[in-house]
Amino acid sequence: MNLDFEPISWTPSGAVRYLDQTLLPDQESYREAASVDDMIEAIQSLRVRGAPMLGIVAAMGLAAAAAQAESRRRLTAAWLDSEATRLAAARPTAVNLAWAVDRVRAVASRAFETGAEPRTVVDNLRAVAQRIWDEDRHMCQAIGEAGAEVIPDGATVLTHCNAGALATGGIGTALAAIYVARDQGKRVDVISCEARPLRQGARLTSWELARAGIEVTAIVDSAAAAVMAAGKVDLVITGADRIAANGDVANKIGTYGLAVLAEAHRIPFFVAAPRSTFDISLSRGSEIPIELRAASEVGAAPGAEVYNPAFDVTPASLVTGLVTDRGLVEPPYLDAVHRLLQQR
Amino acid sequence: MNLDFEPISWTPSGAVRYLDQTLLPDQESYREAASVDDMIEAIQSLRVRGAPMLGIVAAMGLAAAAAQAESRRRLTAAWLDSEATRLAAARPTAVNLAWAVDRVRAVASRAFETGAEPRTVVDNLRAVAQRIWDEDRHMCQAIGEAGAEVIPDGATVLTHCNAGALATGGIGTALAAIYVARDQGKRVDVISCEARPLRQGARLTSWELARAGIEVTAIVDSAAAAVMAAGKVDLVITGADRIAANGDVANKIGTYGLAVLAEAHRIPFFVAAPRSTFDISLSRGSEIPIELRAASEVGAAPGAEVYNPAFDVTPASLVTGLVTDRGLVEPPYLDAVHRLLQQR
Repeated sequence: MNLDFEPISWTPSGAVRYLDQTLLPDQESYREAASVDDMIEAIQSLRVRGAPMLGIVAAMGLAAAAAQAESRRRLTAAWLDSEATRLAAARPTAVNLAWAVDRVRAVASRAFETGAEPRTVVDNLRAVAQRIWDEDRHMCQAIGEAGAEVIPDGATVLTHCNAGALATGGIGTALAAIYVARDQGKRVDVISCEARPLRQGARLTSWELARAGIEVTAIVDSAAAAVMAAGKVDLVITGADRIAANGDVANKIGTYGLAVLAEAHRIPFFVAAPRSTFDISLSRGSEIPIELRAASEVGAAPGAEVYNPAFDVTPASLVTGLVTDRGLVEPPYLDAVHRLLQQR
Repeated sequence: MNLDFEPISWTPSGAVRYLDQTLLPDQESYREAASVDDMIEAIQSLRVRGAPMLGIVAAMGLAAAAAQAESRRRLTAAWLDSEATRLAAARPTAVNLAWAVDRVRAVASRAFETGAEPRTVVDNLRAVAQRIWDEDRHMCQAIGEAGAEVIPDGATVLTHCNAGALATGGIGTALAAIYVARDQGKRVDVISCEARPLRQGARLTSWELARAGIEVTAIVDSAAAAVMAAGKVDLVITGADRIAANGDVANKIGTYGLAVLAEAHRIPFFVAAPRSTFDISLSRGSEIPIELRAASEVGAAPGAEVYNPAFDVTPASLVTGLVTDRGLVEPPYLDAVHRLLQQR
């Protein structure tokens, strides 16, 4: 599976080049981030999004910002720590963002503590950011291989939002399973929920799947129940923004409803995510912070209130299996998740 | 409950003046239809919509077209019959459209058969159209009174799409219950699902409720499950486009999913509709024709397919009660629906 587009890359000067996902599918337009402010703007406006991708671009962005600071002779341990804190707080729900920033921060601390030259610190940060990206690419492939096993030949998979190449450093999480299944010679069709309000399903998933030559049909979110009742869906696979120790899953708003509907129609419901998406410091999904976004994303009449949570929580009891880079994890989740994260 | 806007009215010349609902909430703009072509365009582009409203404007539009034909000395029984057939086919799902056109056609047939002057035919058609409107207004009030009984003081009602004043000749169906409950002194808050793709919930329901001073919160369709899980919804009330003899309900896409979610969260699910929405010629919901609309309404990436059904079917087993102009109809529905339609 080779992509013919590059959602992220390094510029020659060491800044982060990224595909502006807010302009897809109409324009394939790239931007650059060389500072933490640039990166926060890109993350908060969803120019880059997707839980694993947020980790990667945050790490790359912090390395790029350190390089810029170093060239201005302003790179200190205190400066980097403060910038890392700001960047980690750019969005609250996806744990990968804080997880990646913490990894970069740890590398920086070690380097500063050992009295490394600022240039060396920058090299180390670039290296760890690249490593996070490379690991994610490999995790995507591994998730795809594990996920392909749950996709029968001829299946129609319903997915929500975008958990594809645009959301990761590789071929995606939920969509990785589809890409690998197709590369194995299986016929796989996809039904892509729109994912209002920002329409990542209709804009991004349908774009990347059509571009990969996979048959994809876009529906509005509220049509999912009708296509399930009509027997058109063989399984559901979504991504995740954070998974608690008990297997509860925070993911794009609407995921929980799909899980309830899947159970009512006896359709298997899988969640695909790398180990970096698990947060075993939280015992259950109700502890996951849920980002509320602007009313303007929904667009109601003047005088009406808007409630616009970006995510919801699906209880583990509705999840048939967690598709990870270390294979399929099945219920009961608590022990299985701990074992999963203890693996090296 | 007095509205401070007029969704429909007659012009002095006998054409149909209607609020162009595609422009709400940004513009309150009115248009006129004096021919069947005008009316079909208005109906197919959803400038006027809502099952009861479709019946009223079709009847008014046919009377207006007959008046125009009469002024050009072209009003004949054959002409009217052919125009009525075209108009009745403008949209397939809401039974009220065909039902109202058939009533007008019957009046025309009787008038032509008794050798009435063309002017008299026109007068008779205007009279029957006005009667359909007046009846609907009274039905709305009666539905509101029946529906208010199922709304406890302090309740939060979740509704979908627009089954309000903009969808009827009076104060609505689902929203009538809310208006009457409020007028009875109850505190009622509303959560309005957006209703993608055309956003009648976010554009129209939030507009008319905010204008009536009722607290309304707009959510994207896929957030319904999360607000139910959070205990924020006391009951669901929607309208209907057609109800089969067994109580199965065709309504805006997404209604079925809400009914499944309501059952999973043990939330009562009511459907409000006048008797003109029942079609006992169909024994079950699977016989109701479902309109498929243009892919452009959803807007996916190039190369992706779109499946865009405007309606879905909710099985009677998920419906707590049907709120009608003759009171609340409860399961088992088959006999109750037949008895309901036998009443004069």
